[in-house]
Amino acid sequence: MTIRLAVIPGDGIGPEVVTEGLKVLDAVSARFSLQIERTEYDLGARRWHATGETLPDTVLDELRAHDAILLGAVGDPSVPSGVLERGLLLRLRFELDHYVNLRPVKLFPGVRSPLADIKPEQVDFLVVREGTEGAYAGSGGFLRRGTPQEIATEESVNTAFGVARVVRDAFTRAAGRPRRKLTVVHKNNVLVHAGDLWARTVREVAAEFPGVSVDYCHVDAATIYFVTDPGRFDVIVTDNLFGDILTDLGAAIAGGIGLAASGNINPQRTTPSMFEPVHGSAPDIAGRGLADPTATILSVAMLLDHLGYREASQAVEAAVAEDLLERSTAGRRTTAHIGDAIAAKIVG
Amino acid sequence: MTIRLAVIPGDGIGPEVVTEGLKVLDAVSARFSLQIERTEYDLGARRWHATGETLPDTVLDELRAHDAILLGAVGDPSVPSGVLERGLLLRLRFELDHYVNLRPVKLFPGVRSPLADIKPEQVDFLVVREGTEGAYAGSGGFLRRGTPQEIATEESVNTAFGVARVVRDAFTRAAGRPRRKLTVVHKNNVLVHAGDLWARTVREVAAEFPGVSVDYCHVDAATIYFVTDPGRFDVIVTDNLFGDILTDLGAAIAGGIGLAASGNINPQRTTPSMFEPVHGSAPDIAGRGLADPTATILSVAMLLDHLGYREASQAVEAAVAEDLLERSTAGRRTTAHIGDAIAAKIVG
Ligand SMILES: CC(C)[C@H](C(=O)O)[C@@H](O)C(=O)O
Ligand SMILES: CC(C)[C@H](C(=O)O)[C@@H](O)C(=O)O
Repeated sequence: MTIRLAVIPGDGIGPEVVTEGLKVLDAVSARFSLQIERTEYDLGARRWHATGETLPDTVLDELRAHDAILLGAVGDPSVPSGVLERGLLLRLRFELDHYVNLRPVKLFPGVRSPLADIKPEQVDFLVVREGTEGAYAGSGGFLRRGTPQEIATEESVNTAFGVARVVRDAFTRAAGRPRRKLTVVHKNNVLVHAGDLWARTVREVAAEFPGVSVDYCHVDAATIYFVTDPGRFDVIVTDNLFGDILTDLGAAIAGGIGLAASGNINPQRTTPSMFEPVHGSAPDIAGRGLADPTATILSVAMLLDHLGYREASQAVEAAVAEDLLERSTAGRRTTAHIGDAIAAKIVG
Repeated sequence: MTIRLAVIPGDGIGPEVVTEGLKVLDAVSARFSLQIERTEYDLGARRWHATGETLPDTVLDELRAHDAILLGAVGDPSVPSGVLERGLLLRLRFELDHYVNLRPVKLFPGVRSPLADIKPEQVDFLVVREGTEGAYAGSGGFLRRGTPQEIATEESVNTAFGVARVVRDAFTRAAGRPRRKLTVVHKNNVLVHAGDLWARTVREVAAEFPGVSVDYCHVDAATIYFVTDPGRFDVIVTDNLFGDILTDLGAAIAGGIGLAASGNINPQRTTPSMFEPVHGSAPDIAGRGLADPTATILSVAMLLDHLGYREASQAVEAAVAEDLLERSTAGRRTTAHIGDAIAAKIVG
């Protein structure tokens, strides 16, 4: 059993947290006799400054030959906003057809939520964010740029194909959970075309899943429920932009983006899926051992699960859960110390 | 001193909360010898069912002849999603050029926030939401609707004219507040065209306001700060869609949409501005005296302030603040009881 893993440490705190993710993967490899064949790819701000490249086609081709990708973070203030995000991160998601951007929102016992009187069991849901279309399609432009008559547009592109497959994936995940509840989030009273396509698609796919109950929530109202009644959610499915916004809020209520994992998944596995912490490159704290590697380590757990190593994945999640419980009493630890502690629990 | 007020009670709990808003306005009228000339307009679900009309041109013309509009809520499950929102509410905002959608986020003493350990002084900011363009422009459509090849689009339309005027308004408001801080919220690493227009515009307008400090925050990160550090915000300026989402979240952290007021403002006063609670029509609780009229009453305070009746506006806000303080000890009250209590404090 060998995992061919591509590693993209990226920018800012990316390399630091990825180091800890790999440390944990080494522990998993030892305990579960899994072979990990790693190839590291130097992509991000440094490469862009040196060569002007964000993601060369040849590198993309090499990445395709892997089983999975572990990514740290992308983005740096020295690079114009959007260049690395669009040219590297989003290009990977789009080219590798990661149409399921899976983001669990889970409050682990021992972790402090900013919400008053909240219990871990009230925050345990899954956001299935569409990952390959919507407002992220890159369709937009300028007219008369730089003049008082300028118009700048952004187009959200939604296809029956793209919506149906992510909605079906979300139904499937909901059907596999005890509560079997799916909440569709959109803004169909304003975005009437995309909203109509989403609503029709949900109605159609729902017929295939009679055991799953479905409700609908406008995105604005959803943010209210995130902070007043997160327990109402089991699985959420939503578009790329709403999913981006809601999952940061979700990370916040579950104790912070230092803990929020994600998978950019191609469920058919025709391309490598990519796992990354939800937090960004956080250049302000980079290189100082301050970053929390937990989100990356939980992303490693998602990676293992995706590749079918269920037991290994659960071992990682259990080690994290144990470490999080202990944190309330532990003093402040560095990035490496947290990685060490979690890895040690896995080796046992 | 006469205010020509157009009243649109609308749907669901709209009529109930508007009744209380008008009750308070009567109290203001008595105490400050203000004349209020009211005309009520029957718009919303009932009219649509009866006549197919959402907002006839003749009614729009009549509305223009008023000093301000008080609106309850619009929307009913018996009407297809979007029909009343686009045909009535958004049409009013667009036709009357309400480019400043002003939404204070303020935690009043005595009100319970869902956030742990939060103090009222930590939640006191103003969201200036653009109100007449962006993703609300209504630009979008279908290709091959109903087929597996369907494409549904939504276009966010942003103009130099539209962005500059709302950004300038936000700077002006920030300059008038003690902290003089403006936070621009967008998603300029993905929505690179609109984001670029917003960023350039902010840079240009900032030159006119050297006393105001400016920072920028991606919309996803902004939701995190709303729940972990709302005290960092003083004035926020953002586009129509992000503003919609953030202000519901803002309402939630400030104690709920039962308290959140808003003004759809044309600062030049060439058209009547429109004041409305942020909550919707809430058909599930309509007609049962359960709705909280406070958001509408605070919207009346905003209306008075906009028309230059500063003292009257402050009297309403003070009465609300007093009532909110007492609520923690009072039992559950009906919509009318809350209106009575606040009105009584104003008459004195
Ligand atoms: C960095 C950015 C392009 C990205 C996104 O918007 O998807 C990030 O916010 C995320 O959520 O992964
Ligand atoms: C009802 C809806 C069209 C409206 C909006 O999206 O603007 C509402 O959510 C609001 O915030 O006033």
